[in-house]
Amino acid sequence: MTKIKMGLIGLGGRGLGLYEMVIGSRDNVEIVAVADRYQDRADAAVQSVAKFQDAPAMGTTDHREVLNFPGIDCVLVATDWNTHLSVSMEALEKGIAVACEVGGAYSINELWDLVKVHERTKTPFMLMENCCYGRDELMALNMIRQGVLGKVVYASGGYLHDLRDEITLGKENRHYRLENYRRRNAENYPTHELGPIAKIANINRGNRLLTVSSFGSKPGVGLEEYVRNTYDADHALQGESFAQSDIVVTNITCADGTLITLKLDTTLPRYYSRGFTIQGTKGMFNEDNHSIFLDDEHAADHFTWRKQWGNIDDYREKYEHPIWKQYLEEGVRAGHGGMDWLVFSAFFEALEKGKDMPVDVYDAATWMSITALSEESLALGGHPVAVPDFTNGLWINRQPADFVI
Amino acid sequence: MTKIKMGLIGLGGRGLGLYEMVIGSRDNVEIVAVADRYQDRADAAVQSVAKFQDAPAMGTTDHREVLNFPGIDCVLVATDWNTHLSVSMEALEKGIAVACEVGGAYSINELWDLVKVHERTKTPFMLMENCCYGRDELMALNMIRQGVLGKVVYASGGYLHDLRDEITLGKENRHYRLENYRRRNAENYPTHELGPIAKIANINRGNRLLTVSSFGSKPGVGLEEYVRNTYDADHALQGESFAQSDIVVTNITCADGTLITLKLDTTLPRYYSRGFTIQGTKGMFNEDNHSIFLDDEHAADHFTWRKQWGNIDDYREKYEHPIWKQYLEEGVRAGHGGMDWLVFSAFFEALEKGKDMPVDVYDAATWMSITALSEESLALGGHPVAVPDFTNGLWINRQPADFVI
Repeated sequence: MTKIKMGLIGLGGRGLGLYEMVIGSRDNVEIVAVADRYQDRADAAVQSVAKFQDAPAMGTTDHREVLNFPGIDCVLVATDWNTHLSVSMEALEKGIAVACEVGGAYSINELWDLVKVHERTKTPFMLMENCCYGRDELMALNMIRQGVLGKVVYASGGYLHDLRDEITLGKENRHYRLENYRRRNAENYPTHELGPIAKIANINRGNRLLTVSSFGSKPGVGLEEYVRNTYDADHALQGESFAQSDIVVTNITCADGTLITLKLDTTLPRYYSRGFTIQGTKGMFNEDNHSIFLDDEHAADHFTWRKQWGNIDDYREKYEHPIWKQYLEEGVRAGHGGMDWLVFSAFFEALEKGKDMPVDVYDAATWMSITALSEESLALGGHPVAVPDFTNGLWINRQPADFVI
Repeated sequence: MTKIKMGLIGLGGRGLGLYEMVIGSRDNVEIVAVADRYQDRADAAVQSVAKFQDAPAMGTTDHREVLNFPGIDCVLVATDWNTHLSVSMEALEKGIAVACEVGGAYSINELWDLVKVHERTKTPFMLMENCCYGRDELMALNMIRQGVLGKVVYASGGYLHDLRDEITLGKENRHYRLENYRRRNAENYPTHELGPIAKIANINRGNRLLTVSSFGSKPGVGLEEYVRNTYDADHALQGESFAQSDIVVTNITCADGTLITLKLDTTLPRYYSRGFTIQGTKGMFNEDNHSIFLDDEHAADHFTWRKQWGNIDDYREKYEHPIWKQYLEEGVRAGHGGMDWLVFSAFFEALEKGKDMPVDVYDAATWMSITALSEESLALGGHPVAVPDFTNGLWINRQPADFVI
């Protein structure tokens, strides 16, 4: 068996974590080279690789050395947000397949460039949106495909994750979020719930996103209070202001009339959730109390609905997605409740068998565009802005393609 | 004791229901006249009144006869949406105090007219927004006032109520919603959650609403499928199209930077909720799983938060609003979980004692304006539109005034 020769570029917490959780233990993958702009991170990754495989990996602070490594097949790009696309494009130009960690785009232009590089080189590219492989998200997709929820009319979700410590420790941790939150206001992390929703709504496959409008709460309120209350009076961030709204709500309209609402909620106290909600003409799937509501089975009266909290589990046997059925039989692996394992399995499978990537360059460009477009809309007071058709019309005839492993 | 002489105008399900649930049994109120455009409803109300009081009430199909009834002090206006304001203004002109059922405005101009009539006549006017007196809504207000949730950054809520049967039976039931849903697309019922949120955010009292943007799902999808599946093939609504979106999401910005999201969700299968959520710098109050999350008390990790479902009840003793503390001691009365009783108690109390109405004409104009503004924004593809300052600048120095009974 010939192993896939892989490079790792960007070895912060996420990059190294992905390697250790869901890449290192695979028999069919060999890490040949790793890069991080910080020498200590590159060194740590080289040492980590040595625990998983016999052959040593080259370590470097220059990602170009990874891309020039002889015989390399693919790279994981898990750098900071603002180099995801430039590094990915360098790899594609060299015929190296790319597994790109999620994030948002800084301009629409760089997304067009990505699409064009891929179309010209035909090199495989996948956006590693793990939430597409979430158990609930896939179960909802399965129910939609079976018609159980009827025609999809509305979907919402978001990245609802208290990151105040991670952001404000950005200097110490060399984390890119800090400077993004200081200088930008945007839906900066749209793909976690837009990804699964876009798959359900057949975006770029018979449907497409049309417009984006974003609204934000007063910038910096949560972070600035957090800094005041958490750190010493002489901490570098004391008195610092942040450009990012604690809450950004983004409304996205679709060609088929589906309405999508995304919420970014990362700098106020809260529990983690992706707020995943799908409403169709026959029922509703609702993460925030983990319930399914079906027209023929449930009563809509004012007070009994709390009895349905948590009832998603009652429907597992009936509607579990085949991917998760198989996964549960084989044993769920590490990484965000198992999603990380699945999304990498899908990438390696498509790469080995020459199949289409399940989250392709059109998906990536469309989903990542929300960040740049939301930034524009926020700056314009919520004015709707148009989503480019990155498929140049191909979406009209592209067929829905569901996930398989 | 001199009784308050009251008239009832509009005697559909809601008008008559309010009388029988929360007005008829009061010792200090006497119904002198009732009106409905339909004779049978006026007759039924006259008979109902006879069960509660010795003195008979006059019944008529002409509401002007009620307004001309000698010595009348006040009227309840519970007509169809599009006559709420015109009937109210007729009453105010005659010095008759108005308890006006909720609804949305059809134009900004009629709201200016309402404000001006009130300012000129000084006749008391109250919008009977019962949800301002909801137990959870008042508890959240109390927590905000005590600083428990920190500075309010974001609030959301809506009217999430499956009304497919009520709407499609509109002809049989002579209900105004049917024609509204056939012809209009708007956030047609904004006040149920905007009211309590506006009180929390001190709207018109140091803060004000600035802009409104609304987005809708494809109009009519839920209702049209419901008609096909529910009624005979020769039903009058078969093949009829509806202009109203199943889901309307409305984003409202405030002068102080608070962001508000409203959702109208009335023609798809779902459980009833008002989706009431408040997020501040120290915590979150969340109706949809009935939970409170406080920065110092709860862990935000990914999987334990479900343990907090329903924990609002654990905080009752500590944070129950004084209105509800007293109400629970005295015994909760009928009407939407007790709210209807409280909102009418507040109206009669203010009327008898000459106090300011707790939901005044500026609140009414501001909250009801969302319907007309959302209609405008929807027609413009979500373009933000400005909310008029119905106080003409008085909001800057008006002091927050909390509810009391």
